Amino acid sequence: MKPSLTFWYEFASTYSWLAAERIEMLAAQAGVDVGWRPFLLGPIFAGQGWTNSPFNLFPAKGRNMWRDMERLCARMGLPPIMRPNPFPQNSLLAARVATALPVVVRPQFSCAVFRAQFANGHSIADRAVLAAILDDIGEAPPDALAAAEATKTKEALRRTTDQAQSLGIYGAPSFTTGSGELFWGNDRLEQAIAWAKNETATSVDNLDARTP
Amino acid sequence: MKPSLTFWYEFASTYSWLAAERIEMLAAQAGVDVGWRPFLLGPIFAGQGWTNSPFNLFPAKGRNMWRDMERLCARMGLPPIMRPNPFPQNSLLAARVATALPVVVRPQFSCAVFRAQFANGHSIADRAVLAAILDDIGEAPPDALAAAEATKTKEALRRTTDQAQSLGIYGAPSFTTGSGELFWGNDRLEQAIAWAKNETATSVDNLDARTP
Repeated sequence: MKPSLTFWYEFASTYSWLAAERIEMLAAQAGVDVGWRPFLLGPIFAGQGWTNSPFNLFPAKGRNMWRDMERLCARMGLPPIMRPNPFPQNSLLAARVATALPVVVRPQFSCAVFRAQFANGHSIADRAVLAAILDDIGEAPPDALAAAEATKTKEALRRTTDQAQSLGIYGAPSFTTGSGELFWGNDRLEQAIAWAKNETATSVDNLDARTP
Repeated sequence: MKPSLTFWYEFASTYSWLAAERIEMLAAQAGVDVGWRPFLLGPIFAGQGWTNSPFNLFPAKGRNMWRDMERLCARMGLPPIMRPNPFPQNSLLAARVATALPVVVRPQFSCAVFRAQFANGHSIADRAVLAAILDDIGEAPPDALAAAEATKTKEALRRTTDQAQSLGIYGAPSFTTGSGELFWGNDRLEQAIAWAKNETATSVDNLDARTP
């Protein structure tokens, strides 16, 4: 009955990076398991009529996002953010690689992809960048890249994105609990973890109540 | 040299309500003065092509906003949120009244308007609703409503909205410091207050450095 939280993230999303850097430690402190679910925001944005990031479509919003990221990186002790060029990056291949990898290595791979992009300014659409990360974490790059482009991986990523949309997800990062409670944004990570923990506590109480 | 923070709010904005409920206590604890600046989001949204609230334009975003507000009201010990009908409310008259009122009564008036709307479901476009609030806070309703509709008040509110836009504001609530640092959203209130406090501390240090 260990509580769990699903972490929905998009590799091109700046605030997904911040959540990825924090979630494992915060969840461990609360005794909550985390399921890492990379998905694609592009199809969801397209569904609401956007063909680009809202941070590009709405320049004032974009300017403040980059400034907010500068402040948050400093507060969190992260390297200063580098704006990848172009922004947003094409995250399709990275999301497919993450989908195909064993779930136990997804966090490490994903954090490395975010750092390559936002701390080092590398292109995450570049196979060589992803291959170097795979090599670093001990996954054979040719195998992982081949698995990423297998039909079943492409289909799995499409299903994940469809599932995100059917859960009401419209941005990244998002967090969902077992009961379907949805939290949007890095700012809600602590509340999402507390909710997941409390849901399970309630279930345990219910079980106890049934035991004479 | 007391530090100060400007609080930019829109009466129709749910998250502006939450910030209005919290800002005076948090700022007082930090020794920061707050300048309450009601403005209109409508013209700013129109400038980016929106003729309605993003919470209506993007239904998934809207659904999660209302759920988020339910959770946040419960956490903050506020009354459960009531969805005003229509949403967003026409906030023009309320913003004009707040603009015309003496600045010392703006916080009390503004909090009462937010509560009338979001805790009691009243229409803040209704002169009678605003008159009752004015009466409650000891401001003569006929005088305050007449002042609200004076040409100089209408112009002052337009200038405030123009100034908000020129500061890079694109949503509400927002917070700006003396140096022009911009924070967006109720979630950034604590950081904005800390920034305002620190800016002044730095200025004092600079002054001290100039004193032999």
